[in-house]
Amino acid sequence: MQEKFPLDSLTVLTDLVLPGETNPLNNLFGGELLARIDRAASITARRHSRRICVTASVNHVAFNRAIPLGAVVTIEAKVSRTFTSSMEIVIDVWTEDRESGIKNSAGQAIYTFVAVDDTGNPVPVPPVVPQTDEDKKRFEAALRRKQLSLILAGKMKPADATELKALFAGE
Amino acid sequence: MQEKFPLDSLTVLTDLVLPGETNPLNNLFGGELLARIDRAASITARRHSRRICVTASVNHVAFNRAIPLGAVVTIEAKVSRTFTSSMEIVIDVWTEDRESGIKNSAGQAIYTFVAVDDTGNPVPVPPVVPQTDEDKKRFEAALRRKQLSLILAGKMKPADATELKALFAGE
Amino acid sequence: MQEKFPLDSLTVLTDLVLPGETNPLNNLFGGELLARIDRAASITARRHSRRICVTASVNHVAFNRAIPLGAVVTIEAKVSRTFTSSMEIVIDVWTEDRESGIKNSAGQAIYTFVAVDDTGNPVPVPPVVPQTDEDKKRFEAALRRKQLSLILAGKMKPADATELKALFAGE
Amino acid sequence: MQEKFPLDSLTVLTDLVLPGETNPLNNLFGGELLARIDRAASITARRHSRRICVTASVNHVAFNRAIPLGAVVTIEAKVSRTFTSSMEIVIDVWTEDRESGIKNSAGQAIYTFVAVDDTGNPVPVPPVVPQTDEDKKRFEAALRRKQLSLILAGKMKPADATELKALFAGE
Amino acid sequence: MQEKFPLDSLTVLTDLVLPGETNPLNNLFGGELLARIDRAASITARRHSRRICVTASVNHVAFNRAIPLGAVVTIEAKVSRTFTSSMEIVIDVWTEDRESGIKNSAGQAIYTFVAVDDTGNPVPVPPVVPQTDEDKKRFEAALRRKQLSLILAGKMKPADATELKALFAGE
Amino acid sequence: MQEKFPLDSLTVLTDLVLPGETNPLNNLFGGELLARIDRAASITARRHSRRICVTASVNHVAFNRAIPLGAVVTIEAKVSRTFTSSMEIVIDVWTEDRESGIKNSAGQAIYTFVAVDDTGNPVPVPPVVPQTDEDKKRFEAALRRKQLSLILAGKMKPADATELKALFAGE
Repeated sequence: MQEKFPLDSLTVLTDLVLPGETNPLNNLFGGELLARIDRAASITARRHSRRICVTASVNHVAFNRAIPLGAVVTIEAKVSRTFTSSMEIVIDVWTEDRESGIKNSAGQAIYTFVAVDDTGNPVPVPPVVPQTDEDKKRFEAALRRKQLSLILAGKMKPADATELKALFAGE
Repeated sequence: MQEKFPLDSLTVLTDLVLPGETNPLNNLFGGELLARIDRAASITARRHSRRICVTASVNHVAFNRAIPLGAVVTIEAKVSRTFTSSMEIVIDVWTEDRESGIKNSAGQAIYTFVAVDDTGNPVPVPPVVPQTDEDKKRFEAALRRKQLSLILAGKMKPADATELKALFAGE
Repeated sequence: MQEKFPLDSLTVLTDLVLPGETNPLNNLFGGELLARIDRAASITARRHSRRICVTASVNHVAFNRAIPLGAVVTIEAKVSRTFTSSMEIVIDVWTEDRESGIKNSAGQAIYTFVAVDDTGNPVPVPPVVPQTDEDKKRFEAALRRKQLSLILAGKMKPADATELKALFAGE
Repeated sequence: MQEKFPLDSLTVLTDLVLPGETNPLNNLFGGELLARIDRAASITARRHSRRICVTASVNHVAFNRAIPLGAVVTIEAKVSRTFTSSMEIVIDVWTEDRESGIKNSAGQAIYTFVAVDDTGNPVPVPPVVPQTDEDKKRFEAALRRKQLSLILAGKMKPADATELKALFAGE
Repeated sequence: MQEKFPLDSLTVLTDLVLPGETNPLNNLFGGELLARIDRAASITARRHSRRICVTASVNHVAFNRAIPLGAVVTIEAKVSRTFTSSMEIVIDVWTEDRESGIKNSAGQAIYTFVAVDDTGNPVPVPPVVPQTDEDKKRFEAALRRKQLSLILAGKMKPADATELKALFAGE
Repeated sequence: MQEKFPLDSLTVLTDLVLPGETNPLNNLFGGELLARIDRAASITARRHSRRICVTASVNHVAFNRAIPLGAVVTIEAKVSRTFTSSMEIVIDVWTEDRESGIKNSAGQAIYTFVAVDDTGNPVPVPPVVPQTDEDKKRFEAALRRKQLSLILAGKMKPADATELKALFAGE
């Protein structure tokens, strides 16, 4: 299957924070941000696989800055690693200062999508080849996250998680 | 005031068409598309001016392809020309084929925004310098549109619309 | 085909501005207003034609007054002119003062809809006969707008736009 | 206080049924219809009183016809009777056949609103003078409904409900 | 048909009041509350009958306390009585104080649902057996409400409403 | 600080899946489910702490069953463990079969909230005392998840994560 680069399926969703999307503190409501992330990430999964994709799990989302009413929010979703029929997608969330235009990280999310055929059965996806240094770091970390996820779900024994074992036992 | 390029304030809003955003024919509801265009265009106006911006008018929107449920829609908004405190923004709407990834134009919109200060009074915006051939064509056309708009609003006499006069009387 | 009057398909959509429909300045969000206009205009198009109608273009929208949170907004949509299978609809937007009840214009929009059959092919619509003086003025102006629209889309040569030519070259 | 007629505060809200507003049977979701009724009725209450108005109770809503996806729904709200600072509003819901244009009743609702000042205290509203035969019938019935409502809330003894007593004991 | 208890189909819908769900006074918008009530009540009707259920009428809704932005709202829906194929559902609305956790009644609603088969025809529902004292009181009152509703709809003569007659003529 | 039990702040949000909340496969849209989970979880955090709470991170969400249009979805959120000013909340998602009423797990989510004072500074929360066997298992696992989260964020060295070290190096 033809390899692809993360940039081939990069998705950018830039949007405002309107009053109907805020929480009682006048910041972007967490659930609304999660919905936007889900939309952007699913487009990336589809662009990478050219298949129907379903959300399998949200592996992690960190909210590290409240996003106020009226802010501009940019969501960028990229494939970090693929595993047979699943794709790990890393999503960066940015806000930008209206006056200076400087962008600040507001959070990061990691989602896993599975490509399926019309009957809902998993189908293989093209491998991804990381390019930038950050892509490569995320590609490496994705394997550890995959092992963790399997262990937490009871589908892998800690002793078999070679990557993680090295991390903890490794000195 | 420091000149800027159209690319400096380009806004990309890529998003899905979900069932709650369709019309009874199962295509993206026109009003929802207009709302998304408005959001993207207002971000571009703000990025160009670094000011609060309000929609002054929608000069034209052409819908030339229905956008079906489940499609990916990309909205790209760029400043085409500035006039003292107003900015004409041209917005291109694209859909992409899930299997081939080929993008097709689904429509185009032209909006005018005005930059205002905290009391709502118009303030000057940086001039825009077109770069690509298309940017330049749109920059030229923007003046004719401006004159048309003034004539239609009864604020300019046809005889004073030199650009337009040349167009119609010009052979 | 049986002629109809603008009043036969007049659509009135009176509604509130709730917090979930505002922009960060606490006024009705432009995109929400455009969506409401689209809904009312498409009902008028359907009432006039008794057919399925799709939005072909937004020819012009002027926002001439911010509509604050809590306001009552009245949208009135009427057919201004028909062309074989298309209808130009003019939409007036009003707000009213809570205490005095006086209505003020908050904007005006001009949309074009096309009537289609079940397979999506254009079908003829009944001609409209303007009645009030305003109806008649709008009926006249619609032809000039139609020519403009064709010229801007590159589908008509300026030299063939007799109505417009007269306007510009006419003294 | 200056009397008013029901027509002075008539509110008409005509709108479509889009997919995002349906229930799983592809008809207008009951909760969405109730929300639209509430919006129209509160505008009528405000137009009659020129005051801030709050919903005190929904006295009755009958849904007598499912409203399918794509339908045009017209909601008409009129003051039926006033009581010091409260107003009973009767709301008629209509759908119309796309081909024939014939309107059919889809339901009826009766709401009670109270006019309040800026501190939330009830203030008197103008009396309403019914005009059509239907207005007059509704005006009469409103008093019986008011008594019923007081009895159900334990604020009136059945023996004091003269109107109702006559109704039940009356032959 | 197997009897059921009110608790068997109790539905609890606890949710927040976000800015997009408020009215201009910054309280939960009445129409949004009605929509939530409708959702909870229809789940109760379905749980009791294990059938498709449609809203037949809203018999009464009292709003006795404004619910402010940011509040927690709990909606509890229970079957109060059944009649062949219809179910009366009583819905209690509560808010709770953030600091003390104390719950206060914010309103009460009474809805009637009808169970239907796939072709939309009414089908019988299991009888409900009230258990608590409040259940029993509501069970009794439901019959009077049913008779009232029939009288108001012109489907029963006052003289035949034995329960109500006793109430009014009864001393 | 007074200890609390998980049941003290249990939040149940039962709701329908309406067409406006689905994805193009006619199942509940992932982003909408995440929004509902966020709402329920934040209520639990607030009930436990009686404070303003903000979402700090989504630690994990597994979607293990598509939830079709028209389904009833129950979301149950409980505090699994507290750490000074943060609370881990475990959220179970259930759907139920309309005919049999049998509930099936549709997913599980783990969120972390932080309690803050009016100026946004973290404040201590009451400790939670697990009661059921499942509560206890989740309480234990929460510490491992906390350590993992700190390591992934670069705020803890693997060698210091005693719980995890034991897990991987432990035989």
